[in-house]
Amino acid sequence: MTAAALEISPRPMPESMLAALKARFGERCSTALAVREQHGRDESVFDVPPPEAVVFAQSNEDIAFVLTQAHEHRVPVIPYGAGSSLEGHLLAVQGGVSLDLSRMKEILRVNAEDLTVTVQAGVTRNQLNNELRHQGLFFPIDPGADASLGGMASTRASGTNAVRYGTMRENVLALTVVTPQGQLLHTGSRARKSSAGYDLTRLYVGSEGTLGVICEVTLRLYPLPEAVSAAVCFFPSIDAAVQTTIQIIQLGVPIARCELLDANTVRAVNAHDRLGLREAPMLLMEFHGTEASVAEQASLVQGIAREFGGEDFEWATTPEARTRLWTARHHAYLSALQTKPGCRCVTTDTCVPISRLAESIDESVKEADEAGLPYFLVGHVGDGNFHLGYLLDPAKPAERETAERLSQQMVARALKLEGTCTGEHGIGLHKQGFLLDEAGPAAVDLMRTLKAAMDPHDIMNPGKIFAAQ
Amino acid sequence: MTAAALEISPRPMPESMLAALKARFGERCSTALAVREQHGRDESVFDVPPPEAVVFAQSNEDIAFVLTQAHEHRVPVIPYGAGSSLEGHLLAVQGGVSLDLSRMKEILRVNAEDLTVTVQAGVTRNQLNNELRHQGLFFPIDPGADASLGGMASTRASGTNAVRYGTMRENVLALTVVTPQGQLLHTGSRARKSSAGYDLTRLYVGSEGTLGVICEVTLRLYPLPEAVSAAVCFFPSIDAAVQTTIQIIQLGVPIARCELLDANTVRAVNAHDRLGLREAPMLLMEFHGTEASVAEQASLVQGIAREFGGEDFEWATTPEARTRLWTARHHAYLSALQTKPGCRCVTTDTCVPISRLAESIDESVKEADEAGLPYFLVGHVGDGNFHLGYLLDPAKPAERETAERLSQQMVARALKLEGTCTGEHGIGLHKQGFLLDEAGPAAVDLMRTLKAAMDPHDIMNPGKIFAAQ
Repeated sequence: MTAAALEISPRPMPESMLAALKARFGERCSTALAVREQHGRDESVFDVPPPEAVVFAQSNEDIAFVLTQAHEHRVPVIPYGAGSSLEGHLLAVQGGVSLDLSRMKEILRVNAEDLTVTVQAGVTRNQLNNELRHQGLFFPIDPGADASLGGMASTRASGTNAVRYGTMRENVLALTVVTPQGQLLHTGSRARKSSAGYDLTRLYVGSEGTLGVICEVTLRLYPLPEAVSAAVCFFPSIDAAVQTTIQIIQLGVPIARCELLDANTVRAVNAHDRLGLREAPMLLMEFHGTEASVAEQASLVQGIAREFGGEDFEWATTPEARTRLWTARHHAYLSALQTKPGCRCVTTDTCVPISRLAESIDESVKEADEAGLPYFLVGHVGDGNFHLGYLLDPAKPAERETAERLSQQMVARALKLEGTCTGEHGIGLHKQGFLLDEAGPAAVDLMRTLKAAMDPHDIMNPGKIFAAQ
Repeated sequence: MTAAALEISPRPMPESMLAALKARFGERCSTALAVREQHGRDESVFDVPPPEAVVFAQSNEDIAFVLTQAHEHRVPVIPYGAGSSLEGHLLAVQGGVSLDLSRMKEILRVNAEDLTVTVQAGVTRNQLNNELRHQGLFFPIDPGADASLGGMASTRASGTNAVRYGTMRENVLALTVVTPQGQLLHTGSRARKSSAGYDLTRLYVGSEGTLGVICEVTLRLYPLPEAVSAAVCFFPSIDAAVQTTIQIIQLGVPIARCELLDANTVRAVNAHDRLGLREAPMLLMEFHGTEASVAEQASLVQGIAREFGGEDFEWATTPEARTRLWTARHHAYLSALQTKPGCRCVTTDTCVPISRLAESIDESVKEADEAGLPYFLVGHVGDGNFHLGYLLDPAKPAERETAERLSQQMVARALKLEGTCTGEHGIGLHKQGFLLDEAGPAAVDLMRTLKAAMDPHDIMNPGKIFAAQ
């Protein structure tokens, strides 16, 4: 799907609704252009007019009020968390209200003895982990950006650590949701497992704001490991790094993080953060466990890496040394953008079965090299998931076309290899055509049936996930 | 919900449909009373007339044919796997066709290098593991019975091993489903994670045959651990065993199995299998990992158990010795039934946050002791999940009433402790009232909305999950 196919069809808000919002929210309902524009763009490549208004919610009742109004007046509502979507989720393609949840930042209940926590949707993962650290606990899901936990649930996010701890799919226990009709709904419980009826929790996780507004999230927590050890290792080729990863996974090593950066990316983070890393394909790994178990895992992995020509193992066991290494990974995206000032980025997100990963990456890199567009490559390779980011000049349509073509080739290959077009970013605006290719018309029709049954007036984040019919 | 509330309202099959089934399936469509009766009962306490016919499917096309007919004629269809349901899932409360999938036993594809397998729905877990063993792989989900994998997906089953490896919720990657309209549908992919649209896989997992027929299941596999060690340990009280479990989980020990048997149950399995185990509350534990890691876990757990008076640690590291110990667990249900010949069993299945487990079990045991009905207690206590089975004489309605009252008290307590009425058995017929108490009317209404949208003629396993309206 290219920008040309993007359909923008505003559904104007009646004045009576705006008046009702203003009456309830006062300054927390803004129609100022700057505020609307800030809520009308994200990290995607699309240019779309901003929403008509922005409401800053502070409670579940605030959310219910907005949805009740929107339902009555058939006006779109777009939940807004931290604004870090890469796929156009936040864009007001049908106008309406951006519902900003970033002020709903309360950590409602930490149940340390049960390893659970309940947070408001606007709490970010860094905020949560800062709060948990002194209790010896952490929440592992780390998509890179300091995203909100409501947003992470909505896109079924994952990132580093998923190879060991799973994704939002596995780590959300329960939700509080406001339905498109403005009704408060609880799904799930604090029990670790349940067979009580349909899995409404998992239906909302990954629904990208199209079925209601997630306002509270109950998550599984984990004890901070007794020992943590991180390492970087450099390889003669991307393929050697990938082959090392495949072996680690196939042997069942309980590695906590296994991230690939290509030489372009290492070069970019070196420039950005003066890290002085060797500019070669690099695996960044982390091991969690007891002292003995971490040492055993590390030794096993070193043996595997050496078989594939891995060199220059650098270990970090203190938090400070680990932070330096992880800076490379966490700043990869921003550092890469700065190598081409003013650029925009088409980001890919395929995920394939682990044995297909080498083929998937090798071919994609070859095509990108041939196309001549600058790119970077980072990957949660332990999951079979990686991102190529094509850096394009927004003033040059040919570059955008090249990037979209490369992205399409890559997705077609991932699907042929029995993978998915999106491991963790979601469908949003950009991957609607890919979803149809991947899931097939019958499954997409079923998704539409569910959407129509739950949101008959199509007010919740309309125009996302499903291509316009 | 008691038996009195059970509504039996047959929807007769037109002769033309029976003729069409007979024409296609020949002897694989049976109306013989013995066959119908065999498909019209399960391990639940309900007596319900048998289905009108039983069809033995051998292919996805067979299933699609039956559903197309049933959809046209508004006739109920009840998928049948191994018949091991405990909650009345298989009972033909509205008549119709029992669709037996037990002949769909092909293991379609083992992808050892990706740790995935695709099976037909009638493959049982033992059949699968026998096939996988020589490839160094296993599928860990073990509900006790040799259930079919389609049935396990349908009830979101778990059992032992879930504490380490998760439940069917976490381990089903993809499904092939026939919709109530007779259409073949694929959900998910072989990628380990995906954010591609609504999570249709998780919607079908746990839907108890009410949204379509699961005909193929793609599962995650695991490498057989390098070392496996099992142990039993006996405790002065149930509470001491439970407190030990809570500590193990809170410390993050990656224990693979942690099962509780009360003294009644140990007595029953001793009588059944001449195991010669000490007749006291017992934890049965298993550790998976490298030799060093297993030894470390075992030593940690021994230390914890001793603090709570755990004694008589008996270790089993050979497969034969482990089998002897696990016989106690796997034969618990049948052994307990044999302590009261001719009895039936009301089984409970609550699951609570781990810190609430002691309170949940202690009170339930106290109430059962006071009521004087024989019972047994087994539990996947590492998950906070346990089963009390009340053994009743079907000829004595007062015993049934006592069992139902105890069960109701237990569920009420579990919900107060923020748990669930069913950790792994599902709602079926028996727990419909409990689902309403647990999820609340808004969530149950949403489940009904989904059901109505996906199965407008209510042909798929009608009368299950939702109480009659």
